[in-house]
Amino acid sequence: MTAPRPVIAVDWGTSSFRAYALGPDGATQDHRASESGILRVAGGDFATAFRQQIGDWLDERPDALVVMSGMIGSRQGWMEVPYCPCPCDLSMLAAGLKRLDWPDSAHWPGVEVWVVPGLSAETAPGLPDVMRGEEMQIFGALPDLSAEGSGERAVVCLPGTHSKWASVAGGAVTGFATYMTGEVYDVLQGHSILGRLMTAEPAAADAWFEQGVALGAEGALLRVLFSARSRVLSGTLPESAVRSYLSGLLIGHEVSAALCDLEYPPAQIALLGAPALEALYEVALRNLGCDVKRLDAEVAAQGLFQVARRLLDGDTIARMR
Amino acid sequence: MTAPRPVIAVDWGTSSFRAYALGPDGATQDHRASESGILRVAGGDFATAFRQQIGDWLDERPDALVVMSGMIGSRQGWMEVPYCPCPCDLSMLAAGLKRLDWPDSAHWPGVEVWVVPGLSAETAPGLPDVMRGEEMQIFGALPDLSAEGSGERAVVCLPGTHSKWASVAGGAVTGFATYMTGEVYDVLQGHSILGRLMTAEPAAADAWFEQGVALGAEGALLRVLFSARSRVLSGTLPESAVRSYLSGLLIGHEVSAALCDLEYPPAQIALLGAPALEALYEVALRNLGCDVKRLDAEVAAQGLFQVARRLLDGDTIARMR
Repeated sequence: MTAPRPVIAVDWGTSSFRAYALGPDGATQDHRASESGILRVAGGDFATAFRQQIGDWLDERPDALVVMSGMIGSRQGWMEVPYCPCPCDLSMLAAGLKRLDWPDSAHWPGVEVWVVPGLSAETAPGLPDVMRGEEMQIFGALPDLSAEGSGERAVVCLPGTHSKWASVAGGAVTGFATYMTGEVYDVLQGHSILGRLMTAEPAAADAWFEQGVALGAEGALLRVLFSARSRVLSGTLPESAVRSYLSGLLIGHEVSAALCDLEYPPAQIALLGAPALEALYEVALRNLGCDVKRLDAEVAAQGLFQVARRLLDGDTIARMR
Repeated sequence: MTAPRPVIAVDWGTSSFRAYALGPDGATQDHRASESGILRVAGGDFATAFRQQIGDWLDERPDALVVMSGMIGSRQGWMEVPYCPCPCDLSMLAAGLKRLDWPDSAHWPGVEVWVVPGLSAETAPGLPDVMRGEEMQIFGALPDLSAEGSGERAVVCLPGTHSKWASVAGGAVTGFATYMTGEVYDVLQGHSILGRLMTAEPAAADAWFEQGVALGAEGALLRVLFSARSRVLSGTLPESAVRSYLSGLLIGHEVSAALCDLEYPPAQIALLGAPALEALYEVALRNLGCDVKRLDAEVAAQGLFQVARRLLDGDTIARMR
C-alpha cells in the first residue's frame, strides 16, 4: 500500500464544472461547482480556468492527485482521451487514463493531473454509442447497484439531455444506449409550434404526464407529438398541461423503447439523476411495469476516487508512465 | 344547371398564399402565389392583403365566387370555420362552408367569398387530429386516387412540416393522422447538437438516407437520433451525410408507424407533395415494402373547384343562406 495522497476529483462537463477535495477514505472535505463548462471556457484556455477554480486547493495540497472526467477529455476539451470499449470495469478504465502535461506543472511539481476516458459501446451491430462523465456516476453508484452480489446484473438509467441506459454486471459496464430525450424536449419547447402553446407551468408527474407516457410508449412518436397541438385545439388538453404531456410522450417513448432494447430486462431499474427528473422517470417506469430504485446522483466523486485508488497502486502508475 | 360563374380558388396557408382564376371547366386561366401566409399578414388585416393579392381579378370578374381553404379558416385566420368530422365527402364539406362578411363587399357587391372548413378525425379514441388545406389537395386528387372505382380504398400521404396520412373510400376522407416529421427535422437541424455537425449538403435519397430509414423504422427513435452524433464521432458517418441520415431516421419512423397504424394497409400508397420530398418518401416506402404512386400536389384548385360547383348548385346555396 502506498501512503495516502490527497485526491481531487473533477467532473468537468459541457455546461458545468464540479470539484471535490477528498480525504484518504474518499470522504468529501470540500467541494465547489460553477458553470464553467468546457463550452464556456474563454478561448479554450482550460489551464487558466482550472487554476482559477481550484488553484488554492493545489497550494494546500502540493502532492495532490487530480482525476478529471467528462467532456474535458473530448476532442473539444483539454486533452482527448480515447474511449474504452464495453465491457469495462474500473481497472480497465484506470488503464486508459492519460496524464496531462499542463503549463502550470512547474509551479506545482508534485501535482499530477489525469483524465479519465469515456466509454464506447455498440447498441446494435455497426451502431456505436458513447458517454463521457456518466461512467463515473455509474462506477460511483456500484456499491448500491450490486449490493446483492457483485455478479448480479443491474440496469441503471441516467435521465437527462442525453439519457443513458447502462447495463452493469460483475463490476463492469457491459453496454449502454443513449436516448436524446432531454434535448428533443428542449428544442420542441423552445422552437416548435408546441412550445408556442405552452404556459409557464413546469412538467409534473401528473395525470397529463401519465397520459403522455401511455401514448409515447405506443411507438408512433411523431404522430402522438402532434396530439399535443390537436388536443389543445379541441379543448381536451389545457395549455397549462402541455409541458407535462409532452414530457410524458417523450419519456414514455424512451422508457418503453429502452426496456424493449434490453437483452436482460430486469424487474427493477436504478435511477441516477436530478431529483425532479427522477420523479418523472419513476412514474413512467412504474406505469410501464417496472420497479424503481432511486439513487443519489452526486456520486461521480466516489467513482473518481475509486479510479484514483487504482492510480495510487504503484504498479498501475509504473505501467502507464 | 346554373349559368357558369367565374370561380377563384384560394389556398391561404400559414406561410403562403396561392390563388387560381378558373374557367367554367375548372381549367386554370391565371394563377399567382406569394409568401403572404396568414402569419405574415401585418396586423391580421386580411381584407387589405386579399385586395392587394387579387383585387384586379375581382374587378375583371364582378360576379366571382371565391372559395378559400387553409389556415385562413382557423382561429388565427380571417374567419374561423369549424372542422367537419370524418368520414367527409365533398358534399359534406360544401355544407360546412361559411360565407365571409367582408368590408369590401360594397365595392364588389356581386362577389361572394366562402371559406372551406378543415377536417377532424380521431386517430385513437379520445385523440383528435385536424387538417386545414390538405383536404383540398386530397379532394383535388380524388380522380387519380380512385380511378379503379369510387368504392375503392386508397391511402394518400402528404409529406411536409406536418405530414398527413389520409384514408379515402367512396369519395370520402374516412380518417387521417398527422406526423410532425418535417417540423422535428427542422428544429433538430436548426437548434440541436445534430445541427452543429451538419454541412450544407441537402438531404438526398442516398445510401445514408436508406440506412436511416431502416433504423428509424425499428422504433426507438430517440435512441437512433443520437446515432447521428455517435457515428460522426466514431468516423462511420461523414458530416456531409448527416442531413440525409437524419431525414431517413425521421421519415423511416413516420412511414413505418403510419403503415402500422392503418386499419387497412394497402399495397400502394399515393404521394402528394413537393417533388424533392416525394422522392425521399418514395424510397422510404419502397424500402419498407410498399408500392408508390406519385401524384401532382398542385391540385388544391381542383378540389376547391369541386366545392364551388356544389355551391353553384342553387339548392346548396339556398340551404346555407
